[in-house]
Amino acid sequence: MRISALAAEAGLPVATVKFYLREGLLHPGVATSATQASYDASHVRRLRLIRALTGPVGLSVGQARTILGLVDDPGDDLYATLGRAVSALPPAVDAASDDDPDPYPRARAALESLGQVYDPRFAAVAQLETALAAAEAAGMPISEDRLLGYGRSLHDIAAFDLERMPQEPHAAVEYTVLGTALYEPVLLALRRLAHQDVAARRDLGR
Amino acid sequence: MRISALAAEAGLPVATVKFYLREGLLHPGVATSATQASYDASHVRRLRLIRALTGPVGLSVGQARTILGLVDDPGDDLYATLGRAVSALPPAVDAASDDDPDPYPRARAALESLGQVYDPRFAAVAQLETALAAAEAAGMPISEDRLLGYGRSLHDIAAFDLERMPQEPHAAVEYTVLGTALYEPVLLALRRLAHQDVAARRDLGR
Repeated sequence: MRISALAAEAGLPVATVKFYLREGLLHPGVATSATQASYDASHVRRLRLIRALTGPVGLSVGQARTILGLVDDPGDDLYATLGRAVSALPPAVDAASDDDPDPYPRARAALESLGQVYDPRFAAVAQLETALAAAEAAGMPISEDRLLGYGRSLHDIAAFDLERMPQEPHAAVEYTVLGTALYEPVLLALRRLAHQDVAARRDLGR
Repeated sequence: MRISALAAEAGLPVATVKFYLREGLLHPGVATSATQASYDASHVRRLRLIRALTGPVGLSVGQARTILGLVDDPGDDLYATLGRAVSALPPAVDAASDDDPDPYPRARAALESLGQVYDPRFAAVAQLETALAAAEAAGMPISEDRLLGYGRSLHDIAAFDLERMPQEPHAAVEYTVLGTALYEPVLLALRRLAHQDVAARRDLGR
């Protein structure tokens, strides 16, 4: 199909499709003349994925390019690939100085309380530190019992995620990277809705 | 204290503090002359809260203003106030047309599966629809068993949140609105870290 049909199929303006081509998020079509190219179903699928990542997931074009690059070329170390994917996801965090012997004290204490294995270089440790520090600065620190309560529920979710991970390495990376990014907005919306359900059942606030 | 001391205390440039004053996020100090004002600990606390909301929570200045406005002036309907707060949080969603009899079919089906009470006008319903549609468009739809797995864990988290809600109405709004926004980055970081813990214990990916 021509670029106009591709854009219509994906529900995007032609200019946006051209932008993604220029930015390297969308792979080129097959050239049919000096000024035209032909696109197929793989381009439609890719545009849907780009829309999902830059829409509800809230990634910038640069962040989406990083995530898509990891899915396209995952390398052979799933652990390292997931690490790079997580550091491309919000919130952005500054790298710790090598000189600081304990750059993430709140995250370290939390993970020790939870008894969880972790690599301190994994971006999510710095992200947890930032999130805990923000809650603390806003006067609503995460108490020990809240940490343990949240940690237990999220560990259940993570175990569920890992149990369903495909065996084939390329599929495993796609599942892990995209499942981290795409399912987060689902999880947050479900929590907000669960608040409403719990409140309604207790007849609070109405 | 003068504005320079306030800025230093909050770890922000003076220009940023002036910007928040102009934008109405920070309440004015007490005027001490035609060009100077005096600030106190309430201003330091407020700046920390603004930093938390615009930093790790990722809100725009406009979204942070909405959230802070609801905390400052919650009205007497906690339910309506929380509804307004949730619609100020990402992801931004379009209002459904009044003509559409079933604007959120995926969210409706999911909430029916979960057996949850919900108000279809609550912004989180549209947010869930958008998130489910994005996962589907990206070729990774949320299966029924994943929905039930996630839903159970998030219901536990929501029940935990509600159990600890303060009784006094103003404190309850602050807890509910800020706890929704501030604890979400903590929850996402904990899930990412729980993946690592589960994977390490299974000796996967290393």
